[in-house]
Amino acid sequence: MKSITDGLLLDFYGNLLTDKTRSTLEMYLEDDLTLAEIADSENITRQGVHDTVKRGLNQLREYEGKLGLAEKFSSQVTIINEAITLIDNNDPEGARALLEALKTEI
Amino acid sequence: MKSITDGLLLDFYGNLLTDKTRSTLEMYLEDDLTLAEIADSENITRQGVHDTVKRGLNQLREYEGKLGLAEKFSSQVTIINEAITLIDNNDPEGARALLEALKTEI
Repeated sequence: MKSITDGLLLDFYGNLLTDKTRSTLEMYLEDDLTLAEIADSENITRQGVHDTVKRGLNQLREYEGKLGLAEKFSSQVTIINEAITLIDNNDPEGARALLEALKTEI
Repeated sequence: MKSITDGLLLDFYGNLLTDKTRSTLEMYLEDDLTLAEIADSENITRQGVHDTVKRGLNQLREYEGKLGLAEKFSSQVTIINEAITLIDNNDPEGARALLEALKTEI
């Protein structure tokens, strides 16, 4: 199963964060900037960036803990991959059964 | 496409509500109780139930407005149904292409 990374959580729940927290996490997780680089570009202290990142990550994990939607989506990708493999192995009926089961989980 | 009902939003985002708001919405949306019936069972006024329901529904719609995950899941069900139809119509390759496209959206 695809692991639930912080980047995936940011994709899922980022819009629930404040603009500042979201943009800081985007720089940290997506643009792969260091805390010092973010501090420089935002004109705040490295400690300030650190606190924002830590608080933001905690919020994202708390949302996932309550909703579990990133985990759910990831499981779906696994099942869809299995269905594709079954089609490739000339078992469309097996793929069909998997897809029917997947629908009931959504 | 499956429409996004309040019940679906409650399934998705209910865990972000307070226990009281969530249980009130469950009685209203899932158990199909009237405001008066809920008021009776909870020993609060009908107006109090009304306010809780209204506020809770607004919160759910706000979460969906920000995240759009219920809409996303619903679109997936539509695509999975199309893939199943293609398998039934002896077009497993068409189904495979749909599933590959679906993965990139998740």
